[in-house]
Order: sequence, then structure tokens, then C-alpha cells
Amino acid sequence: MKKHFSEELTLIRQTVLRMGGLVEQMTHLSVQALVERNEEMLKDIRKMETEVNQLHIDIDEMCLEVIARRQPAATDLRFLSAAMKINTDMERIGDQAINIVQRTESLLTVPLLKPLIDIPRMAETAKEMLRDALDAFVNGNDELAYETIKKDDLVDQLKDQVFRELLTYMMADPSTIPRALDLILVSRHVERIADHATNICEDVIFMVKGKDVRHQGPLA
Amino acid sequence: MKKHFSEELTLIRQTVLRMGGLVEQMTHLSVQALVERNEEMLKDIRKMETEVNQLHIDIDEMCLEVIARRQPAATDLRFLSAAMKINTDMERIGDQAINIVQRTESLLTVPLLKPLIDIPRMAETAKEMLRDALDAFVNGNDELAYETIKKDDLVDQLKDQVFRELLTYMMADPSTIPRALDLILVSRHVERIADHATNICEDVIFMVKGKDVRHQGPLA
Repeated sequence: MKKHFSEELTLIRQTVLRMGGLVEQMTHLSVQALVERNEEMLKDIRKMETEVNQLHIDIDEMCLEVIARRQPAATDLRFLSAAMKINTDMERIGDQAINIVQRTESLLTVPLLKPLIDIPRMAETAKEMLRDALDAFVNGNDELAYETIKKDDLVDQLKDQVFRELLTYMMADPSTIPRALDLILVSRHVERIADHATNICEDVIFMVKGKDVRHQGPLA
Repeated sequence: MKKHFSEELTLIRQTVLRMGGLVEQMTHLSVQALVERNEEMLKDIRKMETEVNQLHIDIDEMCLEVIARRQPAATDLRFLSAAMKINTDMERIGDQAINIVQRTESLLTVPLLKPLIDIPRMAETAKEMLRDALDAFVNGNDELAYETIKKDDLVDQLKDQVFRELLTYMMADPSTIPRALDLILVSRHVERIADHATNICEDVIFMVKGKDVRHQGPLA
């Protein structure tokens, strides 16, 4: 049965949301596994990655196929082009979650260096940013996209704070260096997840406004 | 005067190459500035970034405009879609070079920790990968793209080697920690440039073969 154009766009929107939900969960669980020292969670995340990789290929194919066959007008083309760009960012968020899994695997072999406070806060904020970015995408809500971009500063501040704190641990006791380095890398992976959420917001604003907000420095 | 379709594609190809040349130079100079402790170079790189950011916007606009107006068939659509994806990766290579500039600025305020050997080798390889990836793109050469992807392993090995070596410095003398951390981060930024070159190769293979090679694990 042939689908209507609007149904095809709806299917793409739904598939993007499904992939978004998965990488949001991967983000959450990767840091949660570290906090709870839970190896089972790590396996779940790796299973999710397989699904994310398949969705990544599917979304690109669906979008290209629709562009080729429907020859969409400007607005729909902007939607499809945004979906493909967002697809790339989501896939890389999945990669970052896997990087966190790898650091966590190493951290679970040694005693906890310190209770984790800022890294879970970073992950919570990055996850919120991702959810809001995808909400903004499906609802074409550029206001929400602008608001979400602002939260990236908080994540950057927390990353700097994590870095400074762990530096003092390392300087005071060199035996903490390997663990502290792993935690610093985790915080950077989370920061990059927030960066990808920011990229998604910029794509949404371009989609809605037809205006390129990238490379404009801090937003008003 | 109206341009022919083939002229439009040629212009896009040329613009991608121009941007590629710039981010290749940024990659080279950012590490060279660190090796030679040369602050002037850092300024040059920042100027290049402004140009790269403008080209990033231009290429996306050109591609979308051509897709909307020409309604290209499958092969040309794959070319245009590859150009847009490659555009994203090149812009992020520029971002990574700027990250290296920031670390170098910090490293130039303190004495050199050790002569740099592996990091310049990593940068050289990443730069070669980028050049070959773009060659593969403009010539539709998927063989070259496959060959280039294989070099990513060398960059990863060097990154691990840099990490292990700097770890021994830090453990032996905590006063070296801040400098060693900056160097570790530089090596990771270079590694990510090589990752982006790998992404470009995968896009080229998809463009040529219409086959998605992403997420297939190690290539034969």
C-alpha cells in the first residue's frame, strides 16, 4: 500500500524520537552505572547501541528516499535535512555513551575515588537538553530550542569544576591519577553529549526560521 | 547568468575542497604551534576558523538550494547529501583545531614537559587521512576511502602510547600533572580529527556504492 507524503514524514519523526529516546537512556544509564557501580547496566547500554546503529542507517535511508521520490518543497526539505543532521548527532551521542561505558568498566575495577555529585548533575542536564531539543524538533518550537542552548553553559561550568577538583586529588596523591583521569574523561564525554544536543537545537532553529544560527557566538 | 547543473556541482566540489584545505592547515598549524612554541601561528588559525565557519554555512545553503531547485536523481542526490555530511565533519575538525589552540595557549605559559614526537606523528597522519578522504570524495574513489579508514588504527595506537607515557610522568612527579593533562587532551583532539576523516571516508563509500559501511565493525 502506498503511503501518503504526510505519513512518511510522520514515520520519520517517530523514528527520530525512538532513536532519541534510546540515546537519552544510554546517556542516563552510562553515568548511573558508574554511580551505582552496576555492571549489568553496562550490558544493557551495549544492546541499545546495536539498535541505535540500525536506526541511524534507517533514518538516513528513509530521508534520502523521500527526498528523491517526493521532491519536497523548501519547508519539507528543511525538515528532512534537519532530520538527517539530527540523526548524525544522535548517533554520536550513542558513541559518547559507549565511551563512558568503557571508562566505567575501568573504574569499576578499582575503589571509588570520591562520591560523584557534579558528573551526575552534568548527565542530568545533558539528558534534559537532549529531550527538549527533540521536543523542539517534533513541534517545530524554536523558542524551546533557544532556551535549551542556554543550558550548555551550565554543563561547561560543571565540567571545569570537575576538572579543578580532580586536579587537586591528583596533585595531593599520585596514586589517584588513573582514576581521576578516567573521571575527567567521563565528564568530557558528557559535555560532548550536551554539545550534540546544542547542535540539534541549532538545526531546529534553521528548520523553523530558515536562518542559520551557527557561528553567531553567544545568543542574546 | 544562469548556471548549468554540472557547474553548480563543480562549484560545490570546489568549495568543499577549499574548506578542506583550510581545516587541513588548521590541523597542521595547531600542532606545529605547540612544537615550535609559536604564538603567531595561533592567531593565523583563529583567522582561518572565521573563514571555515562561513564556508560551513555557504556549503549547506548551496546544497539545499540545488536539491530544492534541481530535484536531482539518486546519484546526484547522494553526492549532495555526502557534501552536506562532509561539511559537518570539516567544521568539527576546525573546532578540534581550536581546542588544540586553547590547550597550546596554556602550554606556552609553562616550560616544555618533554620533546614532542608522537603527537606530531598523530597530527601528520590525521592530516594525510583528511587529504585522502577529500581526494576520494572529489574523485569518487571508494578504494582510496577504504585504504584511508585503515590508517585510523595507527592514530589510535599513538594516542594510547601518548597516554601511557604521560601517565608515567605524572605518577613520578605530580608537578607535571597540569602540563601532562593538556598534552593528553591535545592527543585526543587530534584523534577526533582522524575520526572525522574516517566519517568522511564512510560518506564517500556510501556516495559511490550506495552502500552503508557504517557500523560494520572492522573493515576487511
